[in-house]
Amino acid sequence: MYAVIMAGGSGTRFWPVSRRDRPKQFLAIGTDRPLLVETVARLDPLVPLERILVVAGAHHADTIRALLPGLPPDNLLIEPCARNTAPCVGLAAAHLAARDPDAVMAVLPADHHIGDPARFRALIAAAADRARRGEIVTLGIRPTRPETGYGYIHFDRTDTVDIDGVAACRVERFVEKPPREVAEQYLASGRYLWNSGMFFFTPRRILADIGRFLPATRARLDRIAAAIGTPAYAETLEREFAATEAVSLDYGVMEHADRVRVVPAAFGWNDVGHWAALADFGDVDDRGNVLRGDTVIVDSHGCVVQSEGPLVALVGVHDLVVVATGDAVLVCPKDRAQDVRRVVDRLAARKREDVL
Amino acid sequence: MYAVIMAGGSGTRFWPVSRRDRPKQFLAIGTDRPLLVETVARLDPLVPLERILVVAGAHHADTIRALLPGLPPDNLLIEPCARNTAPCVGLAAAHLAARDPDAVMAVLPADHHIGDPARFRALIAAAADRARRGEIVTLGIRPTRPETGYGYIHFDRTDTVDIDGVAACRVERFVEKPPREVAEQYLASGRYLWNSGMFFFTPRRILADIGRFLPATRARLDRIAAAIGTPAYAETLEREFAATEAVSLDYGVMEHADRVRVVPAAFGWNDVGHWAALADFGDVDDRGNVLRGDTVIVDSHGCVVQSEGPLVALVGVHDLVVVATGDAVLVCPKDRAQDVRRVVDRLAARKREDVL
Repeated sequence: MYAVIMAGGSGTRFWPVSRRDRPKQFLAIGTDRPLLVETVARLDPLVPLERILVVAGAHHADTIRALLPGLPPDNLLIEPCARNTAPCVGLAAAHLAARDPDAVMAVLPADHHIGDPARFRALIAAAADRARRGEIVTLGIRPTRPETGYGYIHFDRTDTVDIDGVAACRVERFVEKPPREVAEQYLASGRYLWNSGMFFFTPRRILADIGRFLPATRARLDRIAAAIGTPAYAETLEREFAATEAVSLDYGVMEHADRVRVVPAAFGWNDVGHWAALADFGDVDDRGNVLRGDTVIVDSHGCVVQSEGPLVALVGVHDLVVVATGDAVLVCPKDRAQDVRRVVDRLAARKREDVL
Repeated sequence: MYAVIMAGGSGTRFWPVSRRDRPKQFLAIGTDRPLLVETVARLDPLVPLERILVVAGAHHADTIRALLPGLPPDNLLIEPCARNTAPCVGLAAAHLAARDPDAVMAVLPADHHIGDPARFRALIAAAADRARRGEIVTLGIRPTRPETGYGYIHFDRTDTVDIDGVAACRVERFVEKPPREVAEQYLASGRYLWNSGMFFFTPRRILADIGRFLPATRARLDRIAAAIGTPAYAETLEREFAATEAVSLDYGVMEHADRVRVVPAAFGWNDVGHWAALADFGDVDDRGNVLRGDTVIVDSHGCVVQSEGPLVALVGVHDLVVVATGDAVLVCPKDRAQDVRRVVDRLAARKREDVL
């Protein structure tokens, strides 16, 4: 079993801590270590570093090497440009196929939080077991609210297989982010799970499906694969990868694939989508505040406060996000945390490169 | 006419900008220049720097010299320790008496904001005119709300004199900060003014009243006065001033004095009592925000934001005070701005000298 960690994200919702050259996966967001480091650490001892591939853009290569000094150099795969997840996973599959086409690859986001790593390892071991047979397996998170920011997986409870005590249900359908009323129906039905973005398959299987649903991308991946280990690799990668269609694995492949199973999972998953998410998994004090760094809190509750240096003092406020770095401060209500990107947009329009 | 500017305050309600060694009067709070500099500047040309005395503690002497480089050295009077305003004004009166016992002294706080300096000068010129006759004159601010944080002046409209078109009414009584219902009655009656803390009298008159109501303080002031210009001055001041009773001029003298007149005034007065006051006199944008320094405001209204460096970004908030310095950030609702001192108390308890 190999793990392929997709570390190419460039989120803006963790400004002012996240910046263009310091996206979320390289930051400690509600954690002690950067999320990428946490992602690698929680795979131990199931998947050692020798069998972990990290895929990211060239501008992040130095950061990744610094965060994961034990990662073998060949295990860092560089995307010459961002082309969404289908080409990214295809590139990793092409490399793994050269090593072992029947190995199982676990595709994992670099920037999620998992509350119960032991349970997580048990479930991904089971998922990998099933994927070894040539099926696609995904982890689906049991929904706890009618979230409109996630994709859902409609599963068939009547077609369930048991993998050493772990249930894996047949996937009926992947569905895109639903409107509120639909999300409420999904939640009430008990027949939908959140799409976690974690997938398990062999290189052989995923390359076959890419060939079926994204044949042009498959042809370019084959040319890249043929160049692996040759002097032409860098040039071939640059040319062919840039020409692939930018599409997500979910939309480009999963929504059309058959023989897909989902393992319903509950292990304290959080996709750390915005600052308010820290209230869901951070250490909460007796007034519901999540506090990191130097803070003084007077008569305030339900707040998320993170400081990378300045003392942050709150008096008489509630349900606010307050984040301070050495050069910037963010204040917003928790229920507006999604809109932090509007600050980043405004700063980009003002060409404020110093704080982007 | 001389001006005596009392610059000895040590407020905590403008933390984190104000610190122990940088009290409010030395800071630009909603202004371009420090409040002390504004106070001196608005007297020009009525009272030139040569006739301005500044009274403050020794630890602030260097700051005052730096802010007012043209102030004659003899015009900076040092209080060896803080003893409230009666000994402070008495000390200034003792010094002025040595220069000219019949000169009029205008006693002015160093840290107020005046929206209409020309009108202010016209009224203090009139007040000084009347004080020259041996009366005590004060400026009373026409109240605009049932404020419980100020003292009030009960005046007699039927006993009014005209000074070149400016009315001066007989004071019936100075009253301390009232409870809310009483303040509402005062406001409704039209017979009360806010006590501005600005007084006009000759040294002869105020020293006589100090002698009458605070005889022990008067005796000590006399000993200090006798030592002015002698080698014994510093030692005498140190000993005698420290032994005076710490009492305000209002409580120790004004509440008992007769022949006191008040000039009802309206010149955009603001005592700059806390951060939320900036909303009353700062430049307000079309969404009711007062913004100073580097800010990005998204969907927010009614806020007071001041940055001394960091970029401050607000998203979806209203009626908040947000203040950022290089080492600290404050967030509180405008109606809790009075409670900022609770942060300072907390920091003092934690011995956080670095941010006090």
